[in-house]
Amino acid sequence: MFAVLCGALLMLAFEPGAIAEQKFQYAIKEFSVPLDHFSFLSNESFSIRYLYNDSYVDKANSQSPIFFYTGNEGDIEWFAQNSGFIWELAAKLRALVVFAEHRYYGKSMPFGGDTFNTSKPEHLAYFTVEQTLEDYALLITFLRNGQQLPVVAFGGSYGGMLAAWFRMKYPHIVIGALAASAPILQFPGLTPCDIFEKITTSVFETAYNANCSANIGKSWKAIESLAATDAGKKQLGDMFHLCDPVKNGDDLNKFMDYLEEVYGNLAMVNYPYNSTFLAPLPAYPVRQFCYYLKDLQPNDTDLLASLASALGVYTNYTGASKCVDYKDSNSGANYDSRGWDIQTCNQMVMPFCANNSDTMYRTSTWDLKKFSEKCYTKFHLTPKPHDILLRYGGRNLEAASNIIFSNGLLDPWSGGGVLRAPNNQVHVIILPEGAHHLDLRQSHPSDPASVTDARKKEAAIIEQWIRDF
Amino acid sequence: MFAVLCGALLMLAFEPGAIAEQKFQYAIKEFSVPLDHFSFLSNESFSIRYLYNDSYVDKANSQSPIFFYTGNEGDIEWFAQNSGFIWELAAKLRALVVFAEHRYYGKSMPFGGDTFNTSKPEHLAYFTVEQTLEDYALLITFLRNGQQLPVVAFGGSYGGMLAAWFRMKYPHIVIGALAASAPILQFPGLTPCDIFEKITTSVFETAYNANCSANIGKSWKAIESLAATDAGKKQLGDMFHLCDPVKNGDDLNKFMDYLEEVYGNLAMVNYPYNSTFLAPLPAYPVRQFCYYLKDLQPNDTDLLASLASALGVYTNYTGASKCVDYKDSNSGANYDSRGWDIQTCNQMVMPFCANNSDTMYRTSTWDLKKFSEKCYTKFHLTPKPHDILLRYGGRNLEAASNIIFSNGLLDPWSGGGVLRAPNNQVHVIILPEGAHHLDLRQSHPSDPASVTDARKKEAAIIEQWIRDF
Repeated sequence: MFAVLCGALLMLAFEPGAIAEQKFQYAIKEFSVPLDHFSFLSNESFSIRYLYNDSYVDKANSQSPIFFYTGNEGDIEWFAQNSGFIWELAAKLRALVVFAEHRYYGKSMPFGGDTFNTSKPEHLAYFTVEQTLEDYALLITFLRNGQQLPVVAFGGSYGGMLAAWFRMKYPHIVIGALAASAPILQFPGLTPCDIFEKITTSVFETAYNANCSANIGKSWKAIESLAATDAGKKQLGDMFHLCDPVKNGDDLNKFMDYLEEVYGNLAMVNYPYNSTFLAPLPAYPVRQFCYYLKDLQPNDTDLLASLASALGVYTNYTGASKCVDYKDSNSGANYDSRGWDIQTCNQMVMPFCANNSDTMYRTSTWDLKKFSEKCYTKFHLTPKPHDILLRYGGRNLEAASNIIFSNGLLDPWSGGGVLRAPNNQVHVIILPEGAHHLDLRQSHPSDPASVTDARKKEAAIIEQWIRDF
Repeated sequence: MFAVLCGALLMLAFEPGAIAEQKFQYAIKEFSVPLDHFSFLSNESFSIRYLYNDSYVDKANSQSPIFFYTGNEGDIEWFAQNSGFIWELAAKLRALVVFAEHRYYGKSMPFGGDTFNTSKPEHLAYFTVEQTLEDYALLITFLRNGQQLPVVAFGGSYGGMLAAWFRMKYPHIVIGALAASAPILQFPGLTPCDIFEKITTSVFETAYNANCSANIGKSWKAIESLAATDAGKKQLGDMFHLCDPVKNGDDLNKFMDYLEEVYGNLAMVNYPYNSTFLAPLPAYPVRQFCYYLKDLQPNDTDLLASLASALGVYTNYTGASKCVDYKDSNSGANYDSRGWDIQTCNQMVMPFCANNSDTMYRTSTWDLKKFSEKCYTKFHLTPKPHDILLRYGGRNLEAASNIIFSNGLLDPWSGGGVLRAPNNQVHVIILPEGAHHLDLRQSHPSDPASVTDARKKEAAIIEQWIRDF
């Protein structure tokens, strides 16, 4: 199901261009890591980047904590600038702040500019969760420099999954982990494949009124009907201000994939204040979007006209956009869809599907075989759909300790999150009013009480871990 | 320090030839595993062997336990026949019994007869602890066949290390582990490098009287003095019934290495009943050995004559041996010194050293650089001395749970064992009268009370884990 695979690609909710803002300061450093931690075949190495700020550290304290962000699918500076909670807490607890860049992202390329050379698929062999966690384990060992220091892992989204798994596998290296909006259960056999779509639908259903999701649910047929003729295709392009005209079925599918992607993104970044994810957005963008779809539209033309207006909330909130580039939704993002696309084709196999009868999405099924074939064609990779379950245990988290799983119920990814604590050493924090890892962001006057409370709880738990150390 | 490296090679204390006895029955099966679990470079696979016995299983119980032996450095049948406690407990708790063969040992060769081809050092690339644990995780997943079953890991010596690490890294797959005589702390920076030698010395000091270790401590100089002349070399060969004459310094070193190896072996298998390790041995063989050295010998000739008699306890207890093959101490063993030698050259870097002033060993130092050079020459491998510490945490075991670490205080390997529980979910059982993983062996009328008690405790803890499941 390609459309929602795209949705998966966009699981991050950070603003591009935020790097330029430089709210937070750091030195940019490099650290050499083995290309392959697990075999004795090669001694090759390369450098990953990390960001470093020791300005909060109490130099008189020989056991200063380290706050370590387990970088995920994008440029690490982008994460640093968009995880304000870590900086705020570091200032309070006088911690060294480190953001480590994930191998194969940002400027941490094992084979430089040749890393993604499609004629060298062997370059992708070391692009795994396990190699990445080893990079981080080595980096922390280096940073500790032989001292016993309490290290806390932080991460949001896929970075939160890494933080949780890092604590599970390297509890001797990190005393605990804050895993914000980390869908570690979004894997085959663990979670129904339509959960993302169902939550998104429910967000659209309740943001303004239920007509919003009903209109969207009906829109697919309307789009297809309109696009059945050449004149209709042209009309569709004009209505939605598309940069490229819809010429054929492939274009039409891309356009509909794009719409589904936008819906998922809107739900993820349904933040209570203006933010700039892929495009600048108003506060509570889903509500704004749904305002245009508040009435049940009786005919296709009116329905699509309303949808086009709604889409403007996402594509042209500032009025500066000339047209909708539905063929390249990630343009300009710091988030790296190429890298993530590869990861979904090796270990991060997350099934998606939907039924139009109970979601606003098109009906689609999860087809591993087809998915695998696409992966092989694109990257010469054969997905291992059970790798993550085998290594990290799926729902069997009994032995885990000192992990905070926080999930916002407005976040479509919360369906794959840990919502029930397996024991009293694992903390589950639910943010009824939270979108995708809102708690990890800098505090804001418009934050709902549940988010402010969550941050307080998280801070208290982390402080306790450090005290217990 | 090659001599004690040899000692390390002989860390197992099972009887060769025991396979022929077939005390315990099983089917021999094969299971296909990926050659490299951690990269997406190749899809190659090979088969590991495992032994399977479901005769104890209560077929009416849908949650029958699985007892899973994490095979170590040798033919898996040998371990199965020499770990009687597992069979006894399986009969009592009605468990399925599985002994899995470690890759690169026995008949589980990734490249068949070509596995150890020295002109193909790349064949050794996948000979690691992590790959092995993944083999076991996959095998258990296959055996469970989708059912929720309580699996307990068992292992002795290096197999005990694997069992403990398996529980630490895959707690969702095994509910607990019995790690018998598992020196997981015998790594650089964790344990003094002379601990093995000090414990062995103390065993020899107290087995009969203190003159035993004193005589051995003095013997090195006596041997070297005697071997200084050609006539003396001949005399040495005659005295000790050596198969090959001592012709030069290299031979002399090999002979002294051999003696040190024998001392370590004797301490390890200092069992309370006759056993057959490398050679048949009487009950409490160190005491028998030391009987010949009970008087402080005033001159070199008498000293060496007594030592030669003592050595006969190890080399010729049955009287069937023609000569002492000091150049090939492992001949006929099921234990695979070649494989273990390779592992010490990649991850299992265990430093050994001694000082003649406080042990009965020759003075020697641990020299990683020299050791690494030898490894490179022999196998094209560069040891990673901190790999194990990085992955498994060394003494930092706070987050571990459901592991029993049992150690006999007569066992030289107990110095690298876990002797203090890091928390109340990890159990430490000390056997004051126990040699190397005596508790894992079949019960015997001559077992000392501490061993019988230990087995009772272990059984109770394991039963509790299964009940809690």
